[in-house]
Amino acid sequence: MNTIGHIFKLTTFGESHGTAIGGVIDGCPSQLKLDFDFIDKELSRRKTAQTATASQRKEPDKIEWLSGLLDGVTLGTPIAFMVRNEDANSSDYEALKDVYRPSHADFTYEQKYGLRDWRGGGRASARTTLPIVVAGAIAKQILKDKGITIAAEVIFMGDAEQAKKEGDTVGGIVECRIKGVPAGLGEPMFGKFSAELAHAMFSLPAVKGFEVGDGFASAKTKGSEANDTFINKDGIITTLTNHSGGIQGGITNGNDIVFRVAFKPIPSIAKPQQTVNRAGETCQIAIDGRHDVCALPRALVLVEALAAMVTVDMGMRQDMRH
Amino acid sequence: MNTIGHIFKLTTFGESHGTAIGGVIDGCPSQLKLDFDFIDKELSRRKTAQTATASQRKEPDKIEWLSGLLDGVTLGTPIAFMVRNEDANSSDYEALKDVYRPSHADFTYEQKYGLRDWRGGGRASARTTLPIVVAGAIAKQILKDKGITIAAEVIFMGDAEQAKKEGDTVGGIVECRIKGVPAGLGEPMFGKFSAELAHAMFSLPAVKGFEVGDGFASAKTKGSEANDTFINKDGIITTLTNHSGGIQGGITNGNDIVFRVAFKPIPSIAKPQQTVNRAGETCQIAIDGRHDVCALPRALVLVEALAAMVTVDMGMRQDMRH
Amino acid sequence: MNTIGHIFKLTTFGESHGTAIGGVIDGCPSQLKLDFDFIDKELSRRKTAQTATASQRKEPDKIEWLSGLLDGVTLGTPIAFMVRNEDANSSDYEALKDVYRPSHADFTYEQKYGLRDWRGGGRASARTTLPIVVAGAIAKQILKDKGITIAAEVIFMGDAEQAKKEGDTVGGIVECRIKGVPAGLGEPMFGKFSAELAHAMFSLPAVKGFEVGDGFASAKTKGSEANDTFINKDGIITTLTNHSGGIQGGITNGNDIVFRVAFKPIPSIAKPQQTVNRAGETCQIAIDGRHDVCALPRALVLVEALAAMVTVDMGMRQDMRH
Amino acid sequence: MNTIGHIFKLTTFGESHGTAIGGVIDGCPSQLKLDFDFIDKELSRRKTAQTATASQRKEPDKIEWLSGLLDGVTLGTPIAFMVRNEDANSSDYEALKDVYRPSHADFTYEQKYGLRDWRGGGRASARTTLPIVVAGAIAKQILKDKGITIAAEVIFMGDAEQAKKEGDTVGGIVECRIKGVPAGLGEPMFGKFSAELAHAMFSLPAVKGFEVGDGFASAKTKGSEANDTFINKDGIITTLTNHSGGIQGGITNGNDIVFRVAFKPIPSIAKPQQTVNRAGETCQIAIDGRHDVCALPRALVLVEALAAMVTVDMGMRQDMRH
Repeated sequence: MNTIGHIFKLTTFGESHGTAIGGVIDGCPSQLKLDFDFIDKELSRRKTAQTATASQRKEPDKIEWLSGLLDGVTLGTPIAFMVRNEDANSSDYEALKDVYRPSHADFTYEQKYGLRDWRGGGRASARTTLPIVVAGAIAKQILKDKGITIAAEVIFMGDAEQAKKEGDTVGGIVECRIKGVPAGLGEPMFGKFSAELAHAMFSLPAVKGFEVGDGFASAKTKGSEANDTFINKDGIITTLTNHSGGIQGGITNGNDIVFRVAFKPIPSIAKPQQTVNRAGETCQIAIDGRHDVCALPRALVLVEALAAMVTVDMGMRQDMRH
Repeated sequence: MNTIGHIFKLTTFGESHGTAIGGVIDGCPSQLKLDFDFIDKELSRRKTAQTATASQRKEPDKIEWLSGLLDGVTLGTPIAFMVRNEDANSSDYEALKDVYRPSHADFTYEQKYGLRDWRGGGRASARTTLPIVVAGAIAKQILKDKGITIAAEVIFMGDAEQAKKEGDTVGGIVECRIKGVPAGLGEPMFGKFSAELAHAMFSLPAVKGFEVGDGFASAKTKGSEANDTFINKDGIITTLTNHSGGIQGGITNGNDIVFRVAFKPIPSIAKPQQTVNRAGETCQIAIDGRHDVCALPRALVLVEALAAMVTVDMGMRQDMRH
Repeated sequence: MNTIGHIFKLTTFGESHGTAIGGVIDGCPSQLKLDFDFIDKELSRRKTAQTATASQRKEPDKIEWLSGLLDGVTLGTPIAFMVRNEDANSSDYEALKDVYRPSHADFTYEQKYGLRDWRGGGRASARTTLPIVVAGAIAKQILKDKGITIAAEVIFMGDAEQAKKEGDTVGGIVECRIKGVPAGLGEPMFGKFSAELAHAMFSLPAVKGFEVGDGFASAKTKGSEANDTFINKDGIITTLTNHSGGIQGGITNGNDIVFRVAFKPIPSIAKPQQTVNRAGETCQIAIDGRHDVCALPRALVLVEALAAMVTVDMGMRQDMRH
Repeated sequence: MNTIGHIFKLTTFGESHGTAIGGVIDGCPSQLKLDFDFIDKELSRRKTAQTATASQRKEPDKIEWLSGLLDGVTLGTPIAFMVRNEDANSSDYEALKDVYRPSHADFTYEQKYGLRDWRGGGRASARTTLPIVVAGAIAKQILKDKGITIAAEVIFMGDAEQAKKEGDTVGGIVECRIKGVPAGLGEPMFGKFSAELAHAMFSLPAVKGFEVGDGFASAKTKGSEANDTFINKDGIITTLTNHSGGIQGGITNGNDIVFRVAFKPIPSIAKPQQTVNRAGETCQIAIDGRHDVCALPRALVLVEALAAMVTVDMGMRQDMRH
């Protein structure tokens, strides 16, 4: 339930204001010399973001590596790591202890578990995505050696400067492209490459939509427009167009994998809102302005990280057949 | 790889022109008297569809129940079932044996497995979704007893009549609503209710997009517009609006679960198309007009079936906690 | 719950007097030309056994292949197969409908599921092991190409001729040896080669004990006696003795894998026995003499089959690392 | 691969001389107030043992709780914990860096991963069982509330005092009894209660044999002797004898679950032994006497812990059916 992947697996743990956030990577190949600088760089992409959109919370994000390494080289055994939560001033949240913030997970967590860690979002906090960045950076390193690269970009974002002034937040859309994936990855029935990507992306907070290739737009085309003509390009069979986004019948065709992820606005807004408390009484809240105005700048590295993890995992599932 | 679900699980098997198509349901509760009439009705929803959009292939779809039942009552053991493929005239496909149909899975299957069943799409045929309808009908029966209902409808479809004349096909968008799901279902991190739904829907052929609640549109709103205000309605805490589509932080909040699925046009078109064959030579094909003009009328029951299976599965995962 | 294996997986279905017994193999490599004669030979090993020990039930065991094959070659997709239950004279069992046979699964199934298929043991019948033989035969074919062979033999069996006269049954011990397994298979912590073998063998009816290498006897030795000295034999590092049974730290060391399985006597005996019925009333039963006197002759092929499946599965798990 | 359990799951990490040893428990019910004193007591059972058999290594075993708790109460989210390795004097092991200790995992790990952490056994060290004790203590707490208790005892152990003098080690046999388990737990085919126990016990270092009820001895009995007569005891159906060890057809029958585990002697002996090094050259080693003479005193709590985890897990799998 807190694990993603079939062969290359990540289990995450941690609440935003608990002792630590971390993860255990199981199934990473042995004899890989980890590029710690790259991991730090990826972590800083999650942390630092444009002034206009990001909150000021200082997160040193200093990784402690707990296992699975000898002199920085992977042993093939589980790689455990964690980051301590240092800036844990839970008193900020005391006022919200009994209040259900609109479109947050406060209410649903209580319905599920009977209680929740009310300090800063607990397990539902965006901070819990940190281990994804670490595992994603390692996955990227594995892919790099195979000539596979991944890049996400924001293709739409609401007017953040204006929203900030209004005490509001904005959403947006991220597009991601994976280049160099060989044809043949993905399981045809219930483990389609597209289905695994969809599942991974919907694991991120605030994601409300996912599409591959032409996506929702393809619903409005005809077959003769949507089909990708196969061509022989210097001895390699590929497609002239890429409406399919690199995936056909759930399996990669060797072309770029292209997908988009829609993020709703962050629900923590400074504007006063009506809600109810645990007793069912109507009340007003205004959430402290420390929160981001938009999740997208931070989300790019997360989208890439999950895409990398899915690609490594699907690659391993295909390799084991030979 | 051919199994969906964690507790209520379906494993499917079969190629479109092999001996049989079928499935094994593992994890179905015992002592359930199956409603075979309802299962047949659901199967006929997959088979029969509007004249304008559906092909004429006769599929008797006569289920043979192989195990797991005593006098029509579930034993708690695996329920295996199958439908024989009777209309298997593979000679129709002989001409396509060495040709990669555009935007079909012919090429990717060969890349993955080194060979493929070229007769009518083989394992990638839409016919292989039949077991999903059977498992979905049983899941719906389980949900009905708990007051949970599921209904999908086509909210957009291209102009099928016109496309048929042109030897072309069209896509569309299905919206599905699950009513009566209690709050608290879904795992917060990598098994969000939305993520499981996304994964399930992307298992269907031709699906290119999935969204929950306001979905891609929510990317263009502000937090103050996208948030759902909690209210106390006669002692029940619920939300005034349902932009979230019934899922917050990955967990159901008790409101209707609403999602949409985008289908690209069926890639089998009568219009001549350019492609390449296995030898890499450019060639022309025109696919026989027996195929559907649009997948959507048949897809409604599939979307509902998978939604039912996910809901039963997530419900069981939550129940086992108590 | 009815599936074994992680990559090379078998899901089984069927009750002894239901419509059919069968299985779905998922994860079998593509492009394997199945040796149907060998599969039949293995099935006949399960069926035919020494006159003294086996019952007379005619089981034609005619396999129907349902999917996953094209001209007898595996497609990489699920291989489904079944055998119809033809000799299903359930009236023999009517008298036992409400009685719990001693040391059978009648009582425990009812406790678990609230009902059971009382006709001949239902899902708990030894007949349900048939699909294991089929999957095992395919696994053996895969191993044969890699130079790995498996052979089980009965190393102890009670006096069957005498027991038969007395209307009684006997147990025994099977020893199995896997030759040619490369060093390095097995997961070190919770997927040890020995643990996977133990799990598999305990899936067989009537198994009450399992040991690897010197097993229980090793508990009575000293370290200096139990340790296997490493030697360099013509450039290959191996061990002088094989007290470990080919597995050290859960991982194969290249030596023969040797294990033993203890079977209790079959619980169906002709001698009169006291028991209780569903109403809790004490009663006497004498079970019809058609049953085997000893499970072991039939069990040899099952032990080998499961050993083959575990070895293929562990091999694939190791391969995917490279 | 480093995870055990289906619903109540433990993932472990850590090498004996790495930074830390720890685990992540996923699937623990929420709202459980952890009994930390009990957990410490269980940990001390693993650490302290009879002078004659245990080594002197100081292991403070001070648990750091990283997540999943609020004021000592479980949140339903992953419970991560760790113990730092403080006594990590790896220089002791430098001499063994290139030598394969007989019947240790040195050789097999290198064959599997291409490298190994040579400092004190690394991932194969008995120290890595520590997280099992923690998860087992929590499982026991869950079971205690349901009236289920577990107790293991040494029923055979070699002459440790004598072996110590000789620089040798001894093995032994542990018997464990689980009282109060309701009838109906266990999956009938590939998740039998006995199979899950066998798998769990073979996860412990040095285990070479496992048996349930009469085990290997039952192979030498007749059916009339091995069968357990059902009786009605004050309205409860139970068995007069317990040759089955509480499990019939893989499912619990309500009687005590009784099983035995055989441990070979610890392979680290002070007596000089011949072996080979990485270069394949024959050499002599004598392993430092700090190691235990017998694993059994420490193993009792491990056997109980795994039995508790399996019981909780199987109980949850059964509960979710209702």
